[in-house]
Amino acid sequence: DISIRDYQTSHRTIQLPGLVNIAAFVPGLVSRDSDDLQRATKASIAAGFSMIRVMPVSKGGSISDVKSLKVAQQNGKRGAYCDFNLSIAATSDNAHQISHAAGEVGSLFIPFNHLSDNISKVAQVEAHFDAWPTHKPIITDARTTDLASILLLASLHNRRIHVTAVTTKDDIKLIALGKEKGLKVTCDVSIYSLHLSQKDFPGCQFLPTEEDQAALWEYLETIDVFSVGSLPYQLAHFLKKPTDVTVGIADALPLILTSVADGKLTVEDVRVRLHDNPIRIFELHEQLGASLEVEIDRPYTLEATESWSPFTGKTLKATVQRVTFQDETVCLDGTMLSVSPRGTDMSTHGALPPTAVVSTPAVRPVTQPMS
Amino acid sequence: DISIRDYQTSHRTIQLPGLVNIAAFVPGLVSRDSDDLQRATKASIAAGFSMIRVMPVSKGGSISDVKSLKVAQQNGKRGAYCDFNLSIAATSDNAHQISHAAGEVGSLFIPFNHLSDNISKVAQVEAHFDAWPTHKPIITDARTTDLASILLLASLHNRRIHVTAVTTKDDIKLIALGKEKGLKVTCDVSIYSLHLSQKDFPGCQFLPTEEDQAALWEYLETIDVFSVGSLPYQLAHFLKKPTDVTVGIADALPLILTSVADGKLTVEDVRVRLHDNPIRIFELHEQLGASLEVEIDRPYTLEATESWSPFTGKTLKATVQRVTFQDETVCLDGTMLSVSPRGTDMSTHGALPPTAVVSTPAVRPVTQPMS
Ligand SMILES: [Zn+2]
Ligand SMILES: [Zn+2]
Ligand SMILES: [Zn+2]
Ligand SMILES: [Zn+2]
Ligand SMILES: [Zn+2]
Ligand SMILES: [Zn+2]
Ligand SMILES: [Zn+2]
Ligand SMILES: [Zn+2]
Repeated sequence: DISIRDYQTSHRTIQLPGLVNIAAFVPGLVSRDSDDLQRATKASIAAGFSMIRVMPVSKGGSISDVKSLKVAQQNGKRGAYCDFNLSIAATSDNAHQISHAAGEVGSLFIPFNHLSDNISKVAQVEAHFDAWPTHKPIITDARTTDLASILLLASLHNRRIHVTAVTTKDDIKLIALGKEKGLKVTCDVSIYSLHLSQKDFPGCQFLPTEEDQAALWEYLETIDVFSVGSLPYQLAHFLKKPTDVTVGIADALPLILTSVADGKLTVEDVRVRLHDNPIRIFELHEQLGASLEVEIDRPYTLEATESWSPFTGKTLKATVQRVTFQDETVCLDGTMLSVSPRGTDMSTHGALPPTAVVSTPAVRPVTQPMS
Repeated sequence: DISIRDYQTSHRTIQLPGLVNIAAFVPGLVSRDSDDLQRATKASIAAGFSMIRVMPVSKGGSISDVKSLKVAQQNGKRGAYCDFNLSIAATSDNAHQISHAAGEVGSLFIPFNHLSDNISKVAQVEAHFDAWPTHKPIITDARTTDLASILLLASLHNRRIHVTAVTTKDDIKLIALGKEKGLKVTCDVSIYSLHLSQKDFPGCQFLPTEEDQAALWEYLETIDVFSVGSLPYQLAHFLKKPTDVTVGIADALPLILTSVADGKLTVEDVRVRLHDNPIRIFELHEQLGASLEVEIDRPYTLEATESWSPFTGKTLKATVQRVTFQDETVCLDGTMLSVSPRGTDMSTHGALPPTAVVSTPAVRPVTQPMS
């Protein structure tokens, strides 16, 4: 490939621990017999994510009760290529039901901007705060005044809350203010939001404006986590491109590490936001035997693949060279090796109150290879 | 009057200190050469209110800068029959200007539901919090998620905030929750909201629903202040009745004291919410020589007056018999005596930081009788 050689410069290879995508969007999550979850794990491990937290909202509905949770769990039993955990979504009237599912999911998601049946009233959110176990994480995609509302409730209940997919200057500033004043709030920003704006795709309201994007970079210290999220899927849908569970996953690391190559971030900034903080905030298990090797500083032009990307044809400066999962190399130079799916549904990890937490190996169930 | 004698029962006469209407709506407040402010003070003193806090939003615009403040002050110089103070309204871009007017007004009003140019963004409200002197009161009419937003900002800035004209179950519950958790929040409910609902006037969205009204009564302990507010004016407008600055003022005390006669409130409940709490919350001067005598328990049918009332023809059980202002009787059995306007613009009272407050007589300027 001539174009690669032309741009070749000195480069460095870096080791990272297995990374976490804290917001994986799986369109067919609650559709019976969907292989979307399996495909999401396969694309994720190839991209360097050894753990994904699956958003409970999907194209075909949400995980919002025991029944829909069962469907997602069943889809998970097809076999996963990385570890994953499931969450449950709050609806306007499922505050009671979620308390029954709490033990089987990793967190409660309170949606304000996803699909139907969003939470609209403070009183409804209040009911969910009261119903949800105090030690378990709560995540929301609330914006502007909705964000302020839920931060108030979190503050009044002395609860931790994680705000996902922040895109605006106002919201990141409010979160920064909250942190400064002692609120237990954390947040993530989609990697796409750091690299694409409404200037690139006019009319795309879910992308930050140029000004918003500049503010996100300015408030880097306020951003606890980088995520993939549903933004790549939304963008594909908006542009009438093929929407697929894999959209955006492979772009994540090359994009964020290109920012490292460009001097906008350090490797440490990335490791903290894709490994350390996700594990701490969401009380995830430590994945021994999961690691990756990335190469930074060698520019190349992104070529089209089966999975649509808005970055095709653009110059990137980082690649994932090797991914190791459970001490076995599963992906080399972007090519998935022939391995069986050995990922585990880790949803119940951390389900017990902190005082009763058992060590990780003891709670890890036997993995189910796909039959 | 035969109908009065028919219903006559034992009754009691009660002494009250001069009362405070913390939210007087004056339509012509910032209209040049309007006598609305004077007429509001006249109707107020006759109704037992020796002090009114004038809302800075009006039919013809808001007090939102030094210029509009000057117009209102000029209107105040026509002579007032009770004491009053003025406030300033936040707009989306006057955070800086209000800091210049802070010394000349009693409080900052942050409107979300009045007229044009409401505050819509958390960042705008944030700017006002930062620009407003920390010791001076802030009032808002925010509802639902807007209310939650502003409570969050008040909490993060450790500021007191007063919520005016609460009408819904959700809002009063949120305020109760806030108080329980230590937020410095106070609130008032319009006396009309306690006695009229959407059942009485279908489609009247600014009135509470029946369920909301029941909740307001249930949360009586959460209600710090009873107010007149703009609700009577809004109702008159909605029903296409004559809208006048006096609407609702004369109804206030007979209505709330009828609830005393009906055993739903004690006299103490009323005194605390129309005198003690308003003075404490808004750091008002103590009005020595202001008092009133009310009669409770003698039922009568409210007759029509020049000022429209939705209660005309209804049975009430309390009347204001005598109002004393500056140690002089100014109103007897509902008839205003021929007195000169001796009320004072008290807007600058309390403008100095707490440590420098001078005793009330020393800062009370010489009153200006109307020429
Ligand atoms: Zn190399
Ligand atoms: Zn149950
Ligand atoms: Zn609660
Ligand atoms: Zn690790
Ligand atoms: Zn009598
Ligand atoms: Zn200035
Ligand atoms: Zn501030
Ligand atoms: Zn007093």
